[in-house]
Amino acid sequence: MDEIIVAFQGEPGAYSELAALEFFAPATVQTRPCQTFDEAFQAVSQGTCTHGVLPIENSLAGSIHRNYDLLLQHDLYIVGEYPLRVQHCLLALPGSRIEDIHRIYSHPQALAQCEKNLKRLGVEVVPEADTAGSARLVRELNDPHAGALASRRAAQVNSLQILAKNMEDDPANYTRFLTLARQPAEIPDTEVGDYKTSIVFSLKNYPGVLFKALGVFALREIDLTKIESRPIPGHVWEYMFYIDFAGHQAQRNCQRALEHLGELATYLRVLGSYPRRRLEDEVNA
Amino acid sequence: MDEIIVAFQGEPGAYSELAALEFFAPATVQTRPCQTFDEAFQAVSQGTCTHGVLPIENSLAGSIHRNYDLLLQHDLYIVGEYPLRVQHCLLALPGSRIEDIHRIYSHPQALAQCEKNLKRLGVEVVPEADTAGSARLVRELNDPHAGALASRRAAQVNSLQILAKNMEDDPANYTRFLTLARQPAEIPDTEVGDYKTSIVFSLKNYPGVLFKALGVFALREIDLTKIESRPIPGHVWEYMFYIDFAGHQAQRNCQRALEHLGELATYLRVLGSYPRRRLEDEVNA
Repeated sequence: MDEIIVAFQGEPGAYSELAALEFFAPATVQTRPCQTFDEAFQAVSQGTCTHGVLPIENSLAGSIHRNYDLLLQHDLYIVGEYPLRVQHCLLALPGSRIEDIHRIYSHPQALAQCEKNLKRLGVEVVPEADTAGSARLVRELNDPHAGALASRRAAQVNSLQILAKNMEDDPANYTRFLTLARQPAEIPDTEVGDYKTSIVFSLKNYPGVLFKALGVFALREIDLTKIESRPIPGHVWEYMFYIDFAGHQAQRNCQRALEHLGELATYLRVLGSYPRRRLEDEVNA
Repeated sequence: MDEIIVAFQGEPGAYSELAALEFFAPATVQTRPCQTFDEAFQAVSQGTCTHGVLPIENSLAGSIHRNYDLLLQHDLYIVGEYPLRVQHCLLALPGSRIEDIHRIYSHPQALAQCEKNLKRLGVEVVPEADTAGSARLVRELNDPHAGALASRRAAQVNSLQILAKNMEDDPANYTRFLTLARQPAEIPDTEVGDYKTSIVFSLKNYPGVLFKALGVFALREIDLTKIESRPIPGHVWEYMFYIDFAGHQAQRNCQRALEHLGELATYLRVLGSYPRRRLEDEVNA
């Protein structure tokens, strides 16, 4: 296999990097940090990277809408998915004990997700731009009283120790990542197998049109695993619908559903069919 | 009318405060800043405020999911809606000219929404926690080279001047706010009128169930104006659906649709029926 170079958003140690490493495991891959989601998409589009691993949905915070929009703007294919259990670790300089920590740096969302546990510790919380950057900050400050909430990968990258794992209040904290590439995933030989297909479409705006659109799946007993609506920029309160359904676009009933949807849609694009990864398949579930 | 005291999230000068003032205009109301959405909900629930005005959806950035979750946690009613055109103004100390500005402070989303115009100015951008706080910072720094992207209300509150209006790259930038109260809005006398109803429900997870649920509206020609799905915390990849439809729950066809939906739903709550505000009605559209 050719060398795999994976673009992700964030600094080394970001949850996205962890997801990229775990998605491709046991294969060893190179990872390339990108400042923005946009840059990560561009790195794949332009060929500097072979793949991108981008978050699309968090079980607590909802969808990452920006990446839905970027999927629409780039001609990339979804070739895989990965559900990552988000385990916020408390990181500190080697030698610091948990009772030494007075201040904890992290992304506001991570701080919010650990609110109860942080209150219990009675520490000051300091919002930062991202989790991995907070880990780097603790390393740079060289302050034994500083801690960061970040991934276990961020500990490795910044030579910090993990004082506590699972700092999150709600263990049902998963982020679903999509793996993107310039070419679609290979079509399976057989009609069987556990696949998902992601599509995006828009509809004329008249009463009942979404009901009809969902009917193309319901009438063929195709299960929807996700539905998401996004405003179309510049068209106030008009929506793009993103749907994931169980099945591969090469399967006949899925093909027919997509043709049927095409009769109703003003726009329709298949973003990709890919093997379904369930939470149980995950390395650290 | 009794005194109206409106809770909003943010500092004085936040877009939410502007929306609150415009929603109740020409009535004069008191506004109460709250640090978090949660606090704003609590202020209404506990009676320190009579109303809350909370953002629920932005035409560019999508839904504000936290507020969907908080609607579920509190026993409040939606009694109105207000679509605010988000006009990012460039604010600075009185006397500063646009060419004096070297650094511009604002919330990352506001900075992103003005990216092209900011590039044209060739200034350094500094992300801050919120737009109104950035305006306050410019006032506190007393730095003639500093600017903030914030609302025109933030200029007023912080005694800053407006160097430029409409800094946003995309003029179709609207935030839809909901007005909340402890009591539902009064039921109109007549079956006619331009109303919306907001509901939240969950469904058993089987293929085609969402299709059936939408059918209760489609078969009665009730127009959906919004559909949103939210993961149920602790139930990975199970969803709450939030739907807005045209009509008042006191109207007979809407009543029947809600009863029909009750047959399919594992949970159903009507969040409120309220007069529909279209963008054209808005003060500053």
